[in-house]
Amino acid sequence: MNSNQTLIKMVFDRWNASLDRFNTLLNSLTDEQLLKEIAPGKNRGIYLLGHLIAVHDDMVILLNMGDKLYPGLHKAFIESPDKSVTEIPAAKELRASWSNQCEVMKQLFEKLQPGQWFEKHTAVSAEDFIKEPHRNKLNIILTRTTHLNYHTGQFVLLK
Amino acid sequence: MNSNQTLIKMVFDRWNASLDRFNTLLNSLTDEQLLKEIAPGKNRGIYLLGHLIAVHDDMVILLNMGDKLYPGLHKAFIESPDKSVTEIPAAKELRASWSNQCEVMKQLFEKLQPGQWFEKHTAVSAEDFIKEPHRNKLNIILTRTTHLNYHTGQFVLLK
Repeated sequence: MNSNQTLIKMVFDRWNASLDRFNTLLNSLTDEQLLKEIAPGKNRGIYLLGHLIAVHDDMVILLNMGDKLYPGLHKAFIESPDKSVTEIPAAKELRASWSNQCEVMKQLFEKLQPGQWFEKHTAVSAEDFIKEPHRNKLNIILTRTTHLNYHTGQFVLLK
Repeated sequence: MNSNQTLIKMVFDRWNASLDRFNTLLNSLTDEQLLKEIAPGKNRGIYLLGHLIAVHDDMVILLNMGDKLYPGLHKAFIESPDKSVTEIPAAKELRASWSNQCEVMKQLFEKLQPGQWFEKHTAVSAEDFIKEPHRNKLNIILTRTTHLNYHTGQFVLLK
């Protein structure tokens, strides 16, 4: 295993462990609990779930792996704060979307060869990438892993 | 920049950005706000601050970089849940410890050569490390970056 493969394993171990932790938590919560706020006046659990799906959908674009699965969630869960959009999908529907997205992304990720993780993502130009080789596809996994942990720390407060 | 240096930059960019985000937040909170719970019945801000110092102190040991700066915090902030230990340092003191620790660790990290980040940390045996090269020093930075983000997501609720 060379150092590039070692780093891929390090980053994906974090990504997968973070998803596992979030999923264990999500499965332990009822739909009623998802409708509660994480703290008085703050985001609801259901908003955080929709937000994570929308953010992970953007990863598919950044990684040049096809189209978003749930483009309709962007407006309510990224552009808008919680409780400002009245018509959002039910908790049950978001759970199914999340679960499907996790599976689809897992399959997309498995198709990439190790070297491809160090190629540029779609938000950086070829010119900039020469000077900034850290702006690669693996870095997208890394930044979204920290993002997922940030919200998992909030999600756990619903328990 | 060779690939090891790129990998190190990816992880340290996350570590440093996560510390910056936490510090901006910490500096925006009063000592009174730190004494509040992040949500009703949950940990207080001051406990999370002490917990982060204690966890980062363990990194010094795992990275084989000397002794802990604040070993006395382990009992109250890792072994014990919040509000079970009555005598804990004042917010002002913890702020100073955190700030000093961030500076000391920054200086320790700068002393390491790129290749050294891919050497084993102290919690893995030389024998296991041959089979599991991802259990290196850089991985300690990565796992504590996700840990820091988890608690930053909670800390922001004090605002």
